[in-house]
Amino acid sequence: MSALVSASKVLDGAATAKAIRQELREEISRLRLSHGVSPGLGVVLVGNRPDSASYVRMKTKVAEEIGVHVVDARLDESADQEAIVAAVRRLNDDPDVHGILVQLPLPAHVDESIVLGAILDDKDADGFSATNMGRLVLRGGPRPLARPCTPAGCIELLQRYNVTIAGKHAVVLGRSNIVGTPVAALLQACDATVTVCHSRTPNVEGHVKQADILVAAIGKPHYVQAGWIKPGAVVVDVGINSVDDPTAKRGYRLVGDVDLNAKDVASYITPVPGGVGPMTIAMLMSNILNLTRHALGIVDVEDAAAGRGAS
Amino acid sequence: MSALVSASKVLDGAATAKAIRQELREEISRLRLSHGVSPGLGVVLVGNRPDSASYVRMKTKVAEEIGVHVVDARLDESADQEAIVAAVRRLNDDPDVHGILVQLPLPAHVDESIVLGAILDDKDADGFSATNMGRLVLRGGPRPLARPCTPAGCIELLQRYNVTIAGKHAVVLGRSNIVGTPVAALLQACDATVTVCHSRTPNVEGHVKQADILVAAIGKPHYVQAGWIKPGAVVVDVGINSVDDPTAKRGYRLVGDVDLNAKDVASYITPVPGGVGPMTIAMLMSNILNLTRHALGIVDVEDAAAGRGAS
Repeated sequence: MSALVSASKVLDGAATAKAIRQELREEISRLRLSHGVSPGLGVVLVGNRPDSASYVRMKTKVAEEIGVHVVDARLDESADQEAIVAAVRRLNDDPDVHGILVQLPLPAHVDESIVLGAILDDKDADGFSATNMGRLVLRGGPRPLARPCTPAGCIELLQRYNVTIAGKHAVVLGRSNIVGTPVAALLQACDATVTVCHSRTPNVEGHVKQADILVAAIGKPHYVQAGWIKPGAVVVDVGINSVDDPTAKRGYRLVGDVDLNAKDVASYITPVPGGVGPMTIAMLMSNILNLTRHALGIVDVEDAAAGRGAS
Repeated sequence: MSALVSASKVLDGAATAKAIRQELREEISRLRLSHGVSPGLGVVLVGNRPDSASYVRMKTKVAEEIGVHVVDARLDESADQEAIVAAVRRLNDDPDVHGILVQLPLPAHVDESIVLGAILDDKDADGFSATNMGRLVLRGGPRPLARPCTPAGCIELLQRYNVTIAGKHAVVLGRSNIVGTPVAALLQACDATVTVCHSRTPNVEGHVKQADILVAAIGKPHYVQAGWIKPGAVVVDVGINSVDDPTAKRGYRLVGDVDLNAKDVASYITPVPGGVGPMTIAMLMSNILNLTRHALGIVDVEDAAAGRGAS
């Protein structure tokens, strides 16, 4: 896992993800030759949200580019919980599907935890199950079969740029199940000292000012001011916020949770877009490959996951 | 859940645990009347470590005092992993056993994670399983059937003394599966901003000095100096360390991780012994009662756990 050389301070997620996709494409090609199997990703998409449809299109495009076949399960916005769970179960039972993702958010009348809970641990492509999350958090013992993709992408990006995590003070903004909580666990597993701030934290600025590594995942455009960043800190901006911009072709642009001027203070910073976003999809594909290997009994997935990242 | 009145700064775990045991005794008595069932605790003890034997004696004494019957599985120090796992499975299959604990540490030739992994999630008295830990960490979704006892005891003690957790900065020293990691998750679930320090943290003192609530769980006698404590902070000392003391009857005494003079700086502090220790056993019994209710299908254990503590 060689480091990319970067002349600038940018943690280039687009370029890094491209390199990972190429590695995965080669590994998948070898797998097909040796075992006659191509990894399969089951995708459950409910309703017509344009953002969800766009994410699924991006994931499908990357999957097909690297040799992962996609099995779609599309349901109408009005589909009830039982119908969605039934769709998950069909993918659970499909031997050609090695990983399943349910595109979130689900419609308001559906209990997401019940739908996600229906995915077999062995096919949990997003690593969101309680068992996988518990394994992520616990020291020792079996490793998770898959790690949540955005957090794994943050860590992988730092590691490929040889950013030291051990011994650093990492401050995570946000405690969501999808980003904040698992990224804190992964940073701690890499021997960072981790502080997690959230909506009930009175003095976020005071915590951010101490961060050697800042991971912002709260979904508030430019919430973190450049003046809060400790000089030389590493900034990972997970936020992808849409803000009005009459000068943009679509009338909006995407911005992160961190003010753009932070680039003048930080030693490394992820751009938005082109930072964590592409890494997320690459790590999803890495999870699918690991789950496929696990299903084939080829290799100890624990070791594979440990080798690829931050366990 | 009324607060105890304390004239001093002491968070009196012994008195609080006594009150909880009395509550549990009454609840168990009602359960026996209504359902003809008494909660059963299966205890696996391997070898002859005096400390382990002592812990098991204490747990057994409390269990019997409140109406929990104990089913012992004692194995020789030389017992191999298969024999220990088989003992766990027998307790899994015993309908009179509602919760199982394996007294740690196990002999060095045994993989603890495999033995603990053999306990059914529904009988995981210590709340150590990956699934229970994942549920503890995740926001929303099903709650854990049991919560790790020492962390749950810390939170329960703070809550019974009406110590405000929400919005406070909590610093946890230690990241063990048994204490540090789950107590950090519980504090965060109570809306504290949490920092976890560990063996790779370069400047523990600097973090401790910022703590509104300090939980010390590193097992180093008097490691935390009184001068590190922020005036008015709440100190929960989980350490139970044996130090030589020729003046003591047994030649040693038990001390915590925090210097005794911290009591002059903190607003509240747990004594060692008599602080977190008795709370741990009380929370174990609370877990057993919840697991018994779950087995009987009486009550939503999620709600019971949420009502009793920090979910």
